[in-house]
Amino acid sequence: MMYVSFQGERGAYSEAAARSFFDKEIETTPSPTFTEVLEKTSKNETQYAILPVENSLEGSVGESYDLLYSTSLNVTGETYHRIEHCLIGIGEMDEVDTVYSHPQALGQCKKFIDKHSMKTIPSYDTAGSVKIIKKLNKKNYAGIASKAAALIYNMPIITENIANNQNNYTRFLILSKKKSIETGNDKTSIIFSIKHEPGSLYRIIKNFHEDDVNLTKIESRPTKENIWEYNFYVDFEGHEENPEISKIINKIKQETLFMKVLGSYPSAKLS
Amino acid sequence: MMYVSFQGERGAYSEAAARSFFDKEIETTPSPTFTEVLEKTSKNETQYAILPVENSLEGSVGESYDLLYSTSLNVTGETYHRIEHCLIGIGEMDEVDTVYSHPQALGQCKKFIDKHSMKTIPSYDTAGSVKIIKKLNKKNYAGIASKAAALIYNMPIITENIANNQNNYTRFLILSKKKSIETGNDKTSIIFSIKHEPGSLYRIIKNFHEDDVNLTKIESRPTKENIWEYNFYVDFEGHEENPEISKIINKIKQETLFMKVLGSYPSAKLS
Repeated sequence: MMYVSFQGERGAYSEAAARSFFDKEIETTPSPTFTEVLEKTSKNETQYAILPVENSLEGSVGESYDLLYSTSLNVTGETYHRIEHCLIGIGEMDEVDTVYSHPQALGQCKKFIDKHSMKTIPSYDTAGSVKIIKKLNKKNYAGIASKAAALIYNMPIITENIANNQNNYTRFLILSKKKSIETGNDKTSIIFSIKHEPGSLYRIIKNFHEDDVNLTKIESRPTKENIWEYNFYVDFEGHEENPEISKIINKIKQETLFMKVLGSYPSAKLS
Repeated sequence: MMYVSFQGERGAYSEAAARSFFDKEIETTPSPTFTEVLEKTSKNETQYAILPVENSLEGSVGESYDLLYSTSLNVTGETYHRIEHCLIGIGEMDEVDTVYSHPQALGQCKKFIDKHSMKTIPSYDTAGSVKIIKKLNKKNYAGIASKAAALIYNMPIITENIANNQNNYTRFLILSKKKSIETGNDKTSIIFSIKHEPGSLYRIIKNFHEDDVNLTKIESRPTKENIWEYNFYVDFEGHEENPEISKIINKIKQETLFMKVLGSYPSAKLS
């Protein structure tokens, strides 16, 4: 059996993303924090860890990016998972006056919540909010979470698709002690830091341009060591084992203060 | 009197940042959401709005960046504010077993909380958690918030500086209907989107390089309209009224699908 660690309670979007990423059957292991998700893989309790890194509405998940910086695991895959929020509870639509969920999910369903004049109570986890309202067992309480969470806690779905915006996807990375082999349609993720001076970022990006390599993501994040020094997180097309890409990586290594290849992995399609 | 809108309860870090930014006396106006902070200025209820955009530990504040995209207000200033978390309550250190605060503040004080085996209860706001524990009036409950919050709610500080990392600064932007004049030590913030093809970001950054203009921040964020299309948020040194900068801006306008100048403003020092 293959074991995959994810953050959150059973029924979390991360768990569903893991199930859709792996073709074969997997055993998923919940963890309360992102740090523990990775630790489980480092300690061989799971072969893979899954981390959300970016949401199409909310942007990057800062905590995940910081863990990518420090982990010794490799990024071996990516997947996009559609977030479809449901209202879950034992009451009817017009009986519900209070909703529990993660603050981000409450924000993403704000129009629906306001339209029905519901009170909101933030909880740590979308799936966890279903666990809470199941225990409370009141018709006026509902949780906002995935269909999977409703199934797992055996709770009725009152209504589906309650988010403001349907373009709600999260990108997840899969990490492992192994490395992914080249498929011909790959991406590579790197982190580097450069001197704060005119042209320093330009010179790095020039390397990609000269070899016609497409950058798919660039982000600067403050380093924890020195205030307002930045690490750059860059994703680009190609595999680190490819000679052309390997040449670019070596050039960048020489031109940066710090550089780390997070891994190369097959590019995911939006499904 | 000058009126400034901020997000949060009285005693919030945003309010303290506003007070330290403006030399003269100001009247601060609390708002529950970032959207309302800006609306107050748009409706002339306040002359200025203050928004947190980036924290040295957590990274960018996604919601603020999305509002910068859509607002018609100008960025007229920036300020760095040191976040110093205090444990606030009526009990002694060894009586406290439960802490309330914003999830981000709880995360930033995790080592302290774990060391003292305290339970955590997430609340929406750091200053708001002090309001809550004042009402609860129990010796085993404490809140994590600023010194200012303790003063405002007239609650004792049990201990100071409880964060894991002392390099905890937040960068705030100040927005207004007016524009800031050139001081000779300015920054400009822009947003643009480009075609997803090799070299497109390179060509934009080249414009800055050719004129020796230093980029101080670059970030890509997903657009809400089209999945995984990105807007780039770039800060650079110089004022938009300066002929050299104005020339670069015009060039970039021609080379991007969309471009917006958020504003030019005096560069802040880390104090």
